[in-house]
Amino acid sequence: MQAARLHEYTDDMSEALTIEEVDRPEPTRSDHVVVEVEGAGWCQTDNHIVEGMWEEYAPVDLPQTLGHENAGRVVETGDEVTTVEEGDRVICHPLMTCGTCRRCRLGDDMHCENAQFPGLTTDGGFAEYLLTSERAAIRLDTLDPVEIAPHADAGITAYHAAKKAADELVPGSYAVVIGIGGLGHIGLQALDSMTAARTVAVDVKDAALDLAADCGADYTVNSADEDVAEAVEGITDGAGALQVLDFVGADATTSLGPDLLAGRGDHHVVGYGGHVHEPSQTLVDAEIAYRGTLVGTYTELQELVALVEQGEMDLHTTEYDLSQINAVAEKLEHGEIEGRAVIKP
Amino acid sequence: MQAARLHEYTDDMSEALTIEEVDRPEPTRSDHVVVEVEGAGWCQTDNHIVEGMWEEYAPVDLPQTLGHENAGRVVETGDEVTTVEEGDRVICHPLMTCGTCRRCRLGDDMHCENAQFPGLTTDGGFAEYLLTSERAAIRLDTLDPVEIAPHADAGITAYHAAKKAADELVPGSYAVVIGIGGLGHIGLQALDSMTAARTVAVDVKDAALDLAADCGADYTVNSADEDVAEAVEGITDGAGALQVLDFVGADATTSLGPDLLAGRGDHHVVGYGGHVHEPSQTLVDAEIAYRGTLVGTYTELQELVALVEQGEMDLHTTEYDLSQINAVAEKLEHGEIEGRAVIKP
Amino acid sequence: MQAARLHEYTDDMSEALTIEEVDRPEPTRSDHVVVEVEGAGWCQTDNHIVEGMWEEYAPVDLPQTLGHENAGRVVETGDEVTTVEEGDRVICHPLMTCGTCRRCRLGDDMHCENAQFPGLTTDGGFAEYLLTSERAAIRLDTLDPVEIAPHADAGITAYHAAKKAADELVPGSYAVVIGIGGLGHIGLQALDSMTAARTVAVDVKDAALDLAADCGADYTVNSADEDVAEAVEGITDGAGALQVLDFVGADATTSLGPDLLAGRGDHHVVGYGGHVHEPSQTLVDAEIAYRGTLVGTYTELQELVALVEQGEMDLHTTEYDLSQINAVAEKLEHGEIEGRAVIKP
Amino acid sequence: MQAARLHEYTDDMSEALTIEEVDRPEPTRSDHVVVEVEGAGWCQTDNHIVEGMWEEYAPVDLPQTLGHENAGRVVETGDEVTTVEEGDRVICHPLMTCGTCRRCRLGDDMHCENAQFPGLTTDGGFAEYLLTSERAAIRLDTLDPVEIAPHADAGITAYHAAKKAADELVPGSYAVVIGIGGLGHIGLQALDSMTAARTVAVDVKDAALDLAADCGADYTVNSADEDVAEAVEGITDGAGALQVLDFVGADATTSLGPDLLAGRGDHHVVGYGGHVHEPSQTLVDAEIAYRGTLVGTYTELQELVALVEQGEMDLHTTEYDLSQINAVAEKLEHGEIEGRAVIKP
Repeated sequence: MQAARLHEYTDDMSEALTIEEVDRPEPTRSDHVVVEVEGAGWCQTDNHIVEGMWEEYAPVDLPQTLGHENAGRVVETGDEVTTVEEGDRVICHPLMTCGTCRRCRLGDDMHCENAQFPGLTTDGGFAEYLLTSERAAIRLDTLDPVEIAPHADAGITAYHAAKKAADELVPGSYAVVIGIGGLGHIGLQALDSMTAARTVAVDVKDAALDLAADCGADYTVNSADEDVAEAVEGITDGAGALQVLDFVGADATTSLGPDLLAGRGDHHVVGYGGHVHEPSQTLVDAEIAYRGTLVGTYTELQELVALVEQGEMDLHTTEYDLSQINAVAEKLEHGEIEGRAVIKP
Repeated sequence: MQAARLHEYTDDMSEALTIEEVDRPEPTRSDHVVVEVEGAGWCQTDNHIVEGMWEEYAPVDLPQTLGHENAGRVVETGDEVTTVEEGDRVICHPLMTCGTCRRCRLGDDMHCENAQFPGLTTDGGFAEYLLTSERAAIRLDTLDPVEIAPHADAGITAYHAAKKAADELVPGSYAVVIGIGGLGHIGLQALDSMTAARTVAVDVKDAALDLAADCGADYTVNSADEDVAEAVEGITDGAGALQVLDFVGADATTSLGPDLLAGRGDHHVVGYGGHVHEPSQTLVDAEIAYRGTLVGTYTELQELVALVEQGEMDLHTTEYDLSQINAVAEKLEHGEIEGRAVIKP
Repeated sequence: MQAARLHEYTDDMSEALTIEEVDRPEPTRSDHVVVEVEGAGWCQTDNHIVEGMWEEYAPVDLPQTLGHENAGRVVETGDEVTTVEEGDRVICHPLMTCGTCRRCRLGDDMHCENAQFPGLTTDGGFAEYLLTSERAAIRLDTLDPVEIAPHADAGITAYHAAKKAADELVPGSYAVVIGIGGLGHIGLQALDSMTAARTVAVDVKDAALDLAADCGADYTVNSADEDVAEAVEGITDGAGALQVLDFVGADATTSLGPDLLAGRGDHHVVGYGGHVHEPSQTLVDAEIAYRGTLVGTYTELQELVALVEQGEMDLHTTEYDLSQINAVAEKLEHGEIEGRAVIKP
Repeated sequence: MQAARLHEYTDDMSEALTIEEVDRPEPTRSDHVVVEVEGAGWCQTDNHIVEGMWEEYAPVDLPQTLGHENAGRVVETGDEVTTVEEGDRVICHPLMTCGTCRRCRLGDDMHCENAQFPGLTTDGGFAEYLLTSERAAIRLDTLDPVEIAPHADAGITAYHAAKKAADELVPGSYAVVIGIGGLGHIGLQALDSMTAARTVAVDVKDAALDLAADCGADYTVNSADEDVAEAVEGITDGAGALQVLDFVGADATTSLGPDLLAGRGDHHVVGYGGHVHEPSQTLVDAEIAYRGTLVGTYTELQELVALVEQGEMDLHTTEYDLSQINAVAEKLEHGEIEGRAVIKP
């Protein structure tokens, strides 16, 4: 079968992946599931993997087929699989988890001690077929795999962050969402459906802020034109925001937290690239937190699929062929992808 | 009456405060309470105030009587006070809160929008009498004000941090406590009484680690001799700690978090002086948080008093006269105070 | 001034209250607030008070002016009141709370140890003027007191129950709301704005179910025609509901819980009149709970006002003069009040 | 092998089970584990099963080998088992759970949709060998299976209830524990290790109250001699208890809740046999809850094992041969078992 594989780290996205012929995967365990990939989202993290940025955080063996936002049709299953069967449409959680470590048993499977991550530590979905496991597959009754593939990672990451923030929000309180791109526009919709708090969207592009308004943002602030802290102080009548969701994670955005937050507020770091750098006293004085957020659990992906089924979540995607994959990588590098790119292998 | 007052910021603790004659305070509101101060703890924050470090975080008008860890005897009350009366022994929460802003109404009175902080924004307890309010006073039925005065700030700060950590701990999990001084030894005892998790105490002094063992630490690590990350990895059998309580807050301690923590763990920043400085990706990859922690609420001081009454909390104090106050400031600056110094005005 | 007062318990609503001339109240404490009542909601609880049903639960001294859902204009304040002033429009939380007991300090002011309840333990709002306190008054910037008066009790009771349920709901889960009257239609809207869970409304009247659909119910079940347990099993695909909100509290509705609930689910008892009667084993086997719910806190009333201001909460009211008050009591007794009746004294 | 089996429901415990020869179980799935039973606790629930009381709550096919508190030595494993191996000592969670349904994925495996319950729905541990699964087995590094077998059900049931209560308790608050038998004495120790709240033990037998004092109870009340409500009112200085753990669940104990509880308190129903029967208004007026509690999760059994390893949990057991099993059933029926009976097949 055809697969798009990373052979060596590079900063030149025009030659990021090589499309080549590899063997089709087969189930070798009782819980394995082979999926014919119908849609596989290209993610900013794919650029980061190509650049070698994940090497110190995860065991990556090159060459590797990338692609961790996968959805498609089940074509073969291990002999003890019961929750999906051949022919089912599925969306795949990005991790293959063990189900027996303490974290899995707690339901916190994103922190599985024995997880494999197709597209990072095993072969991923930029290929005709993907090997995953029953514990990663969620059956789709009505939804089109191609249209929702990016929810497999971008979607639950945004949903998971929004859910953590929503736990702290009540009617009358405010959340600031920074960066209204592939994740941010999902995060806004998740907040809108799960809370009655008011949301302030922040971005440097007016087009992104228009999208934010469509996604339920109550206020928008263009940080290229306006002082964000002043704007938020005005909007919140001096009270500040209880929650900040930072889908950028650059120095310029992490440093906004203390100026935007009310006491005991949280700055959720979802995007990465920059640093968190603050005096300890700043965290202490207002009792604020910087909280990292990493993807989401399998059950959170189920919840997100329910939101999509209920029509509360629009995902902006553009479709590409496998042969266009490096062009997609370059476009994203230059900020030229509207919404989310989906590869159709 | 005699009061020890700060006239100008200085780094020279030998001339930190001036003892002088000032008017005794009188109640001017229905909820005011005047306390004859029997014990007032000297706190590291007092050194920081003298150095001018709080100027940008709070409105300080010099000259000011310092002293925010106060306990004593009620001598006069405003005309609508009902929960304490003349003659009652009380410990005073460090804030005079309004009781009507939303934060007060939520019980989160540490974040009162109209709070006054005697010893920082109004005159404090290094004086014969202190003006505070009913909402700050907790009646002591059996305890000696002099012996427990430092619980008014050091105590609830440590208790509050321990309580936040305890919410995340279960039997079989681990907490690391960094810095076993005035706050740390209280934090350890609070963890010991409120959780069945195992605790690892970290300090550079063996005497502090001996105190830690007395306070219930299951393991001790001298960070001057041992690699803390390796030690914690060994103790936790590779799992890491779920919670870190950092009573130091220096660069060298805040940077330990990512190496000590299990996924989704928290590094509570209680002490201050240094910075939090980490790549966003480090917070994201393990989904860890840096959480500032600021003193504690009035009801938490009630809970701490209950712990003390139940005999589950030993506080190490040394008593000094008001005339020795600058000597105390100097000793603390040089790390020469064992436990906590209490001034008896 | 004119006031509608209860002189003796009776089951005959046509002579429930007597309209008579009484003295206008004056502030006697620093935090008192006198409100010119513009709207005062008549509540099912008023019928219960008239019948003597609250005698064993609260200290009621007859004669008493009833009326605990009050809103109007501030005309006089005690001398330390700062959050409202003469001329402000306000809605009044039903309790005058002390602000100093532990429950008040925790933010759980509904369980204040020293609370007074105008309309039950002191004179209420079926009168030209009402004596309440600063801790009960919430300033209204734009809303009309007459239109929202019932939120003071019916509203927050429904909101509080919905918020407790919302804490347990996620996208894809189900809540059943039983009884779509004055409270139920608010509860549905609160769930709709605060969660993405699906809601099933249950009532015996089709008109109520139509109202439910307007208020965001995803499914409606007429319990006079259908077996509710079967209907819910079908709707939830056998999974059951995670939460039941029972605004009726009769034997016939409390007994539905075990048949509707998924494991670990909660049956919230909001309405009263009947009994909870189940084998212990039924609660144990599915690990379900019966949870009473009582009004809501001051901060919850603030949150509800925010929802109303945001346009997410429609309240159906009909207005009556003070002279019609016993007719209103009779109508409610016979189920002839659409939405909520508001008295304009 | 020898097994003690139930052939028909009876109230005569002297002929409850028949000891007979059956086939030794073999693994038929990749995750199966066969355990040589070293200890199997006899539980009050076994009496209830023999009496037919579980027939309407679970699918029981007679004849059945009873025994759901099992511990022993692994003798054979399915071919994908990795967390235990032949020769390991293990304690077995009472459920064999699927690991793929939503409840399992949430960590709430006690509510697994596909669970099997050896000793109730499949053959249990009153036999030489037991068929269970990897998801039920917890490896014991140092503990003796015979001594701790009852923790497999009695233990986690008490631990789970205590943990739910502990979440609501703080220093200075009170919990009442009713029934200090096999479960109650574990529940008390769990509360003692996990909270700093004060505990009041209630029983009709002085010997049970002596055991309670050994297990950390701060107060004891003999309900045969004293009015429990009055006693608790005195102990708590009128405040009431925040939590009641009812290990009896009889009419006489469930009816105590409203008289013992503070506002918003919970009455946890652990034991069963009687009914919960209260006016809806009683739940509403004080906002109290009756919360059923059912066993506990796999991870909670891990936590309990950690408590035992740390020496914070003493279990009182007496050992019996398989041949004595009906005598044990009779003794328990007559309240003549001290602590917990363990069968050694």
